Amino acid sequence: MNPSNPTDISKLCIHTITTNPWNIEEAAQNYSAAGVKGITVWRDALQARNIQQTGQMLRDQGLSIVSLCRGGFFPAKDIDKRRLAIDDNRRAIEEAHQLGTSMIVLVCGADPRQSLEDSRKQIRDGIATVLADAVAAGVKLAIEPLHPMYADARSAINTLAQANDLAEEFNSPFVGVAVDVYHLWWDPALKKEIKRCGQNENLFAFHICDWRTPTTDFLNDRGLMGDGCIPVKQIRSWVEATGFNGFVEVEVFSNNYWKENQADYLKKVINAYKEHS
Amino acid sequence: MNPSNPTDISKLCIHTITTNPWNIEEAAQNYSAAGVKGITVWRDALQARNIQQTGQMLRDQGLSIVSLCRGGFFPAKDIDKRRLAIDDNRRAIEEAHQLGTSMIVLVCGADPRQSLEDSRKQIRDGIATVLADAVAAGVKLAIEPLHPMYADARSAINTLAQANDLAEEFNSPFVGVAVDVYHLWWDPALKKEIKRCGQNENLFAFHICDWRTPTTDFLNDRGLMGDGCIPVKQIRSWVEATGFNGFVEVEVFSNNYWKENQADYLKKVINAYKEHS
Repeated sequence: MNPSNPTDISKLCIHTITTNPWNIEEAAQNYSAAGVKGITVWRDALQARNIQQTGQMLRDQGLSIVSLCRGGFFPAKDIDKRRLAIDDNRRAIEEAHQLGTSMIVLVCGADPRQSLEDSRKQIRDGIATVLADAVAAGVKLAIEPLHPMYADARSAINTLAQANDLAEEFNSPFVGVAVDVYHLWWDPALKKEIKRCGQNENLFAFHICDWRTPTTDFLNDRGLMGDGCIPVKQIRSWVEATGFNGFVEVEVFSNNYWKENQADYLKKVINAYKEHS
Repeated sequence: MNPSNPTDISKLCIHTITTNPWNIEEAAQNYSAAGVKGITVWRDALQARNIQQTGQMLRDQGLSIVSLCRGGFFPAKDIDKRRLAIDDNRRAIEEAHQLGTSMIVLVCGADPRQSLEDSRKQIRDGIATVLADAVAAGVKLAIEPLHPMYADARSAINTLAQANDLAEEFNSPFVGVAVDVYHLWWDPALKKEIKRCGQNENLFAFHICDWRTPTTDFLNDRGLMGDGCIPVKQIRSWVEATGFNGFVEVEVFSNNYWKENQADYLKKVINAYKEHS
C-alpha cells in the first residue's frame, strides 16, 4: 500500500508461473516493458538454458531476481527419496547462485504415508543438512507455510506459527519465512505471527493473490487480488508495519487466466496490484 | 478403539448423508439390521415427513438419534439474511426437539463479502440469540470448526482453539464443540485442544472419515477411514482420554461411494470403523 502514490509499482514482483504460457524471455521482455521491477523465477522456466546467462538477461531487462521457486519437498517415507530431495535442494541452491538471486522459497513437503510429526522432523533435518551449502552460496532459505489443504502431500508446515518456530530454531540469517496470503489469510493468529516474524528478522518474502468463491481446483484456481475474499491490503499493512521493505510478489496459478492472452492478462495483474494491494 | 473387542460397533453412529442415496427409512432399516446403534440425521432426510413419527421409527429400529445436522450459517453481509438464519436455526431446534435428539451440529457460516472478524462476531451473536430456545427445547448446540479451506463461505471458525474459545465464552452446558477429524487433523495444536475441550466439558461430538490423496473435490471426495492419511485411531484415543464416551460418527460425503451399491458400501463403512478407528 502506497497511499501517497497508488500508481507506484516499484515494489511489484511477478512469479514466472503467473504468466505460465510465456517462456522466461517473453516474461522478462513483457514485465520490463510494463515497468515491473521484480521477477521470481520458477525452476521449470530455466530448463535447457544457461542459468548464468539467463540471470544476466533478466538483469539487462532491469529486473531484480527476487527468488527462485522452489526447493523443499524434504519428507519421504523411504530414505532414498529423502536423499534425492537433499541432492535436489543442493542443485536448487547452486541454480540460485548461478542465476544471481539470494533466496530460495521452500515448499517443505509431506508424505501421506507417514505422520505429520515424521514429515516435520524430516523437514527440519533436510534444512539442517543443506544449510551450510546455502550459507556458502549466499542463498537464503524461505520456509513457506502452505494452506492446511496441502498437509497431506505438499507441506506439513501449515501455519505461520509453525514456520516461525522452525525458523527461530535455526536462528540463522539464512533461514526465514515466506508469507503467502493464499495459504494464511484464514488464520486468526496471522497479524500476531506476522509481527513476530518481522521482529525476529525472519520475514523474507511476501506473496499475494486471492481466494475465489467457489474455488474449483485445489491447485490452479487462484484469483488476482480483488477476485476474492482475502484482505490483501490489510495483510500487506501488517507485513510492512514490521519494516518489511521487499518486493510484493504476485503468484497466481490459474487455469482460467493462463487461457487468456497473456499481454492482456499482465495489464490485469498490474491493475489488480495497484487497486487491491 | 476398543482393544479388548475390535469387533465392537456399539459406539458406531452413521450420518444419513454417508449413505445419501438411501432415504431415511432405508437407512434406518439397513443400519439397524447391520447392528449399528447410532444415527445422525441430516435435515434434508426429514423433508415431507412427520418428524415426531420419524423419530419414533428410528427408535423402534433400536437407533439412538445422536444429533441433527445442521444449524448455523449465521453470518451474512445483509441483515435480512441474518434474520432468516436465526429463523432457520429456531426451526432446526424445534425439529431436533420433535425428532427426539438432544444435539444440533452447527456449521457456523461465513460470508466472503465481509471480513472474517465480522463473520465471527455474527456467529457469536447468532448463537447468543438462539441459545434460550435451545435451552428451552433441551437441545445442545455443537460448534463444528471447519477446515480452513471453507473459511470463505462455510465457516469462519476453522480451528479447535477458536471453537473452544467460543464455547468457553458462552460457559453453558448447552454450547459445546463437534470435533471432526477431516477438518482438524492437520493442526499441530489438536491434541492439546482436544484435551482442553474435554476438560471444559465441551466435547459434545466426534466425527470421523479420512483425507484422500489426491482429494479431487472440495466437498464430496472424503474417504472412509483407512483410505487416507488421517491418524483416526490416534485422534480417537485423544478424544476418549478426555473421558468422552459418546458415539463415534462416520460422516462421509463421497460422490464415488454414493455411486456404489449402498448395502455393499455399508459393509465397507462398518469394516473401516472396525479396522481403522
